[in-house]
Amino acid sequence: MSSQLLEQLIEAFRVLPGVGRKTAQRMAYHVLERERDGGKKLAETLQSAIDKIGHCERCRDFSEDAVCATCTAPARDPQLLCAVESPADLLAIEQATGYRGRYFVLQGRLSPLDGIGPRELGLDLLSSRLAEGEVRELIIATNPTVEGEATAHYLAQLARQHGVRPSRLAHGVPLGGELEYVDRGTLSHAFGSRSEMP
Amino acid sequence: MSSQLLEQLIEAFRVLPGVGRKTAQRMAYHVLERERDGGKKLAETLQSAIDKIGHCERCRDFSEDAVCATCTAPARDPQLLCAVESPADLLAIEQATGYRGRYFVLQGRLSPLDGIGPRELGLDLLSSRLAEGEVRELIIATNPTVEGEATAHYLAQLARQHGVRPSRLAHGVPLGGELEYVDRGTLSHAFGSRSEMP
Repeated sequence: MSSQLLEQLIEAFRVLPGVGRKTAQRMAYHVLERERDGGKKLAETLQSAIDKIGHCERCRDFSEDAVCATCTAPARDPQLLCAVESPADLLAIEQATGYRGRYFVLQGRLSPLDGIGPRELGLDLLSSRLAEGEVRELIIATNPTVEGEATAHYLAQLARQHGVRPSRLAHGVPLGGELEYVDRGTLSHAFGSRSEMP
Repeated sequence: MSSQLLEQLIEAFRVLPGVGRKTAQRMAYHVLERERDGGKKLAETLQSAIDKIGHCERCRDFSEDAVCATCTAPARDPQLLCAVESPADLLAIEQATGYRGRYFVLQGRLSPLDGIGPRELGLDLLSSRLAEGEVRELIIATNPTVEGEATAHYLAQLARQHGVRPSRLAHGVPLGGELEYVDRGTLSHAFGSRSEMP
């Protein structure tokens, strides 16, 4: 590589998810050849986003302000609280469902081997939130993985301690999927939890 | 989107090649959740690369200095000059071949409809370089597209005017390819240019 700085730029692009050496190279060349203005904008926005975006004090979602817009929106039902693992999960639920309650972002899942316990997930914050008495139902939307399930059980217990009803997203065969290609665990669960047709 | 700045960051990521809304979202979340240091580094490097990387006066490749390292390297044969369309093509040749001559980067191809003529490709610079009398062979490595071929013919004429021998990369069936899947144009060309086996 003739330019040291170009080499550094290619390496720097590799922090992005799914970007290897070849893609990073293509990105660096593309920006320098055709998108210098856009690249400058990206550098500035990235810098200021990293400096300014922190976590909401109430729900732990990304926010520039101390308390985020979702937590302060008066139109949202304060009796419903949905616990998700990450801000990306929150966004997926916002985009797919008509849910109009509030959220709590765990920023991870229980994983004692990685040193992630109740404190890292902000469960003290969640606990005092539930203790306020306003929340009636805690919708637990952690991922259907081993760690996600363990976290869900822990959260359900916590909810019951505060007299809040815990609920969990339904598991089963995905809509539009074909039984032949559904994994065994899902199929077995869907078979066991079959419901009577109306 | 609860945060305005997050929304701006997602839009800013879309200047990168092959990055749509969904990937941009994933990148923004990934950087904010897990790679704040790397993201900061990326922002700084991108900024300084855009500010400092210009083009080499001699070969028009990307360079921080007025003349790039490839042009000044004493180990490279000054009698060989290879013309390529873009810095990415230069890199591909460097990585794949053992070529130890110099380069000239056109930064495009002749395309009169898009307003790209000889002046935009720096052919006056190339012309005066050939007039210096040091170059013996001009290896024309433009892409095998209609515009690349037109550019190649123009460059070949220019080389002959200065008494420099023009050469062109070989066309034919790619190594490891299967005839069944090779496109018609390539196959027809390879058939016509068949050579006697030793």
